[in-house]
Amino acid sequence: MSLTPFDHPWLSGLLGDDEVAAQFSAEADHEEMVYFEEALAAAEGAEGVIPAEAAEYIADHIGGFGADFEALAKACARDGVVVPEFVRQLREFMGPHGPYVHVGATSQDVVDTSLILRLRPVTGVFRERLPALDAALATLDTRFGANTLMGRTRMQDALPIRVADKVATWRGPLGRDLLRLDELLPRLLVLQFGGAVGTLDKLGDKGRAVAARMAEALGLGLPERSWHSQRDNLAEFAAWLALVTGSLGKLGADVALLAQMGEIALSGAGASSAMPHKQNPVAAEVLVALARHNAALVGSMHQALVHEQERSGAAWTLEWLTLPQMVAATAASLRTALSLVASIAGLGHA
Amino acid sequence: MSLTPFDHPWLSGLLGDDEVAAQFSAEADHEEMVYFEEALAAAEGAEGVIPAEAAEYIADHIGGFGADFEALAKACARDGVVVPEFVRQLREFMGPHGPYVHVGATSQDVVDTSLILRLRPVTGVFRERLPALDAALATLDTRFGANTLMGRTRMQDALPIRVADKVATWRGPLGRDLLRLDELLPRLLVLQFGGAVGTLDKLGDKGRAVAARMAEALGLGLPERSWHSQRDNLAEFAAWLALVTGSLGKLGADVALLAQMGEIALSGAGASSAMPHKQNPVAAEVLVALARHNAALVGSMHQALVHEQERSGAAWTLEWLTLPQMVAATAASLRTALSLVASIAGLGHA
Amino acid sequence: MSLTPFDHPWLSGLLGDDEVAAQFSAEADHEEMVYFEEALAAAEGAEGVIPAEAAEYIADHIGGFGADFEALAKACARDGVVVPEFVRQLREFMGPHGPYVHVGATSQDVVDTSLILRLRPVTGVFRERLPALDAALATLDTRFGANTLMGRTRMQDALPIRVADKVATWRGPLGRDLLRLDELLPRLLVLQFGGAVGTLDKLGDKGRAVAARMAEALGLGLPERSWHSQRDNLAEFAAWLALVTGSLGKLGADVALLAQMGEIALSGAGASSAMPHKQNPVAAEVLVALARHNAALVGSMHQALVHEQERSGAAWTLEWLTLPQMVAATAASLRTALSLVASIAGLGHA
Amino acid sequence: MSLTPFDHPWLSGLLGDDEVAAQFSAEADHEEMVYFEEALAAAEGAEGVIPAEAAEYIADHIGGFGADFEALAKACARDGVVVPEFVRQLREFMGPHGPYVHVGATSQDVVDTSLILRLRPVTGVFRERLPALDAALATLDTRFGANTLMGRTRMQDALPIRVADKVATWRGPLGRDLLRLDELLPRLLVLQFGGAVGTLDKLGDKGRAVAARMAEALGLGLPERSWHSQRDNLAEFAAWLALVTGSLGKLGADVALLAQMGEIALSGAGASSAMPHKQNPVAAEVLVALARHNAALVGSMHQALVHEQERSGAAWTLEWLTLPQMVAATAASLRTALSLVASIAGLGHA
Repeated sequence: MSLTPFDHPWLSGLLGDDEVAAQFSAEADHEEMVYFEEALAAAEGAEGVIPAEAAEYIADHIGGFGADFEALAKACARDGVVVPEFVRQLREFMGPHGPYVHVGATSQDVVDTSLILRLRPVTGVFRERLPALDAALATLDTRFGANTLMGRTRMQDALPIRVADKVATWRGPLGRDLLRLDELLPRLLVLQFGGAVGTLDKLGDKGRAVAARMAEALGLGLPERSWHSQRDNLAEFAAWLALVTGSLGKLGADVALLAQMGEIALSGAGASSAMPHKQNPVAAEVLVALARHNAALVGSMHQALVHEQERSGAAWTLEWLTLPQMVAATAASLRTALSLVASIAGLGHA
Repeated sequence: MSLTPFDHPWLSGLLGDDEVAAQFSAEADHEEMVYFEEALAAAEGAEGVIPAEAAEYIADHIGGFGADFEALAKACARDGVVVPEFVRQLREFMGPHGPYVHVGATSQDVVDTSLILRLRPVTGVFRERLPALDAALATLDTRFGANTLMGRTRMQDALPIRVADKVATWRGPLGRDLLRLDELLPRLLVLQFGGAVGTLDKLGDKGRAVAARMAEALGLGLPERSWHSQRDNLAEFAAWLALVTGSLGKLGADVALLAQMGEIALSGAGASSAMPHKQNPVAAEVLVALARHNAALVGSMHQALVHEQERSGAAWTLEWLTLPQMVAATAASLRTALSLVASIAGLGHA
Repeated sequence: MSLTPFDHPWLSGLLGDDEVAAQFSAEADHEEMVYFEEALAAAEGAEGVIPAEAAEYIADHIGGFGADFEALAKACARDGVVVPEFVRQLREFMGPHGPYVHVGATSQDVVDTSLILRLRPVTGVFRERLPALDAALATLDTRFGANTLMGRTRMQDALPIRVADKVATWRGPLGRDLLRLDELLPRLLVLQFGGAVGTLDKLGDKGRAVAARMAEALGLGLPERSWHSQRDNLAEFAAWLALVTGSLGKLGADVALLAQMGEIALSGAGASSAMPHKQNPVAAEVLVALARHNAALVGSMHQALVHEQERSGAAWTLEWLTLPQMVAATAASLRTALSLVASIAGLGHA
Repeated sequence: MSLTPFDHPWLSGLLGDDEVAAQFSAEADHEEMVYFEEALAAAEGAEGVIPAEAAEYIADHIGGFGADFEALAKACARDGVVVPEFVRQLREFMGPHGPYVHVGATSQDVVDTSLILRLRPVTGVFRERLPALDAALATLDTRFGANTLMGRTRMQDALPIRVADKVATWRGPLGRDLLRLDELLPRLLVLQFGGAVGTLDKLGDKGRAVAARMAEALGLGLPERSWHSQRDNLAEFAAWLALVTGSLGKLGADVALLAQMGEIALSGAGASSAMPHKQNPVAAEVLVALARHNAALVGSMHQALVHEQERSGAAWTLEWLTLPQMVAATAASLRTALSLVASIAGLGHA
């Protein structure tokens, strides 16, 4: 069953992105949740919060743990989050050392840190595709830059421009988006670890040291405090996603209009069931649709900033409904833009 | 891979709805697409648009057709829509009668009519759950209506009210929403059939008669014209969905606040990984999250009304990204509200 | 100072609508607030809730009351709503009869009923403009319906259509929108009267009778209960506004694209500061912008359905930020569509 | 007439901000438009694009120019933008030197650069208020930090925290927002100057030099190219605005809930028309409403990134409908947060 095109058997070919979607599988989430508990036990062992023996046992055996997904699903429906049942199973798995699992941590620590650990490779994908797209556009410039196009303002012929001018307006935002990503990454890729109410209360004076070890082990930044109820870094990232898809939406809108005016040649464009001869600029339209989808969703991440008290189940759940598909839409948009640009066989008039 | 909680292995227990999600499976879509082509061939046979023999052959054999989903996925990525490849396979399956499949129809006819055929049972589910929820609330009124609660305005104690007053404000919108659904259904549950540019141009003077037979066979209304580029009926339905989830979001917000004040007793509320004794009003928070999610998405359906020319790939694709998950959110919201109300073990002070 | 184009000294000519904007002036609001208090005192006098003499005095003198706006502004900043200071001034104005003003009522009763009283003429304007636009389009059909146009799907030439086909797709939603408006009006145009917590607690067994008299006097429907925390009727209306502007946005997008292809002639189109010879389809673009603006705002009215407890200052204030400009955008859209259609000097090819 | 509370006679006291609103008056816009034309003529005189004598005359006389606003309004309704008529009046004012006004520039150059020039002081206000709010919260920490509060997760009592913990979660985003603002300002505060189609075609090889002189004179950055159809810098700024209001919305939600639980004392809170004794946390609710309003609007700025061709009237107009009120909401939110924090007379339990 597929409630979004992003993982629909046939629509995902059009609107999905396998590489990035993989990070949002339950399996990937499970893997990072285990990784969190592993790092936690190791850090707590090193700091003497739990017995060294327990830490060692957990380190040796956690690789063999696999949760029972059906039981997770059932419990999640009741608890609103998967962690209590996940921890219950993991503790059971660890036998007498079970009580030393998840000590001083809370659900949000596990779920949020797992998310961040999975966003890391996702941002890696974006850091590759953005320059790749820029390079593809540079090639376009090399091939067709000297050609002319009619410049159009307010949907009317204005004055001729060169293809180089057009391509430059498509490239401009890409460089800035890469810069913005580099600016926000240190804020985004950080450990979440706060315990029940964000104060690491159960760890006494060891909290900060445990957190530092975990951040080190997981390769994440260590924020000054738990960000459990400060979600601005996620909202900032979501807005970045919508910036990228928005600018690619402009590329899509331009290409669709160029196609209508016969000023661009696209190889491999889409077929029509009613008019087999017709060539549709499908990829260009997809860019517009994904841009508008992310533009609709981005505000939810800002709504979710109104995260009441020490943890809002409602605001947190809203993020789950929003961010993964925004990431998927952005990945699909970059992938589509790359293939669209690669398909341009002609642009402008010599 | 699960880009939304609606079909995630463990989150769907919390945020999904199996009954309604089934209508958005690729299998269900395939079934209704086949049903469309079956009804089309039968109608065109009866009107002499295609040979009676071909119509008969198609009717006899179409039940045995099952498309190759992998090929659909591959083609969909290119064509932007699944129908050209679906029709190609179906024509091939029909051998010499293949050319008589999909005559005069276009992709939008198949995809949109399939959607409507699947929204029909979905609205049936809503027509059951809304009165069921109203009845459950009526029972609540019977059980606790005479109890008192503190009425609160602007987050402050105001004056005491009876539980009956509170329950009445939860029930009010449900009756109106049912009435609204009955008003909009005749506009929503209609055939889409327009051919390449919405004018049934290939069917000459037979277009209207074929459409009438199809509508009859499929049990759908027959609109005056093809609505291929007039999407107000879908946007109207989406806004209805957001109305329902919004009003249930108020129920959720109220219950969560009552829980905080200790004025409601919920059986089976959620566990915490950090504080095993704690009981979280998970269902109440889910109602708020689903309300805000639909509120974010609904505008996309209004954006998609700006459906340029005779078919906008961009606006149409945006609907696919939006409507299914709005339906799922609404079904999940009603399901959750039903179970939340059933779990209320005490409300107000005797 | 003009934070929106709707009342900006020069942008309002483009994006505003004087007739409808007048209903959102502070003066109009003041007038209906007075009207509410007048009807309330009369009803309470008739039902014996307040002395007949006081009711008579209030009826005789209220016409002479005009609030001090500066004092209202100052108090509103503190109270979050204008009514406490408005009532204070009105009571002072009524001297010894002052205590009989606003008896048993609350701020929401005054503000919401005033809004409904002002939406009534607004919906009257819409009920005039929708058929007027439909008639203007019918004339277009008469003048140019037999001409041909290229039908375009997915931004590509498909098959020729007649202008009549195009015009029919523009007209279709208008009739349905009128029908929808008639369906929702009985739910929208209703009295709000609930007292402090929506239960008319201060009026004892006279509450319902007072409400009935007020509804009669104000010409509004009498709902079963106060709808102070059930805002679905306003959200339903907002969604209707976005439906109208969305469908007119499609008209705008089509006209802009027709203009680009040279298939439409517009008289009096806009000038350019850089290219004096150029004619811009300004009205068409405005229709698209207003459609997207309402599409962005509509979700806020669904967010505001999550109206916690007996009165949510936050959700209520959000409506104030949203609904008036949605109404203005819809009025401006209809006005603009009327003038755009009137400016069409040629359409399609003979 | 006031279509938004931001400039409503009495609601603006609650939801407006005079200091920032002043930058969105027509007068302020006019002033910066004049400033643009002054800088343009001076730069073009220096570069020999226009006669030195004309440049001198314009410099000497432009201070005396004041446009006829009524004529602007009338023309704007036709042209979709105020500049053609503004330039016509300014040229007339300059008599024989009139033709040397606005040479090589286009409407977007004037309107966008005026916007940027007015956003500069606005961001100055934000750069003051953010640290001021942080300092006010630090004072709160000093006064009440050692007190205890019940920590609440998922709307339930969890474990006690110190007021210092709560205050720290309010302060966290403020520092990051200030950092983000400093990161984005060099991208935002840049000259827009591109001519008819963004290529400064009319200025031959002098375009870049003229632009450099203008940027210098206006104190703005000089981007590599005209950003007339690349609007990511504005969307980035809008998302920043929604980040700020979102985090302040969390402060508001927390304070409202604290008020409900009696854990905070606010001096000067709002009155009720029905219950004079009641104290409403009005400012806290306003913060939530403004957060949700900006969250609804922000997506429009991302929609507007889909800015087709060399200038989209539709997408540009959508920005006008969106950005000014987002700025106003942010200013009002910061102002309200400052006064809310100042009004806190007690927090937590000693």
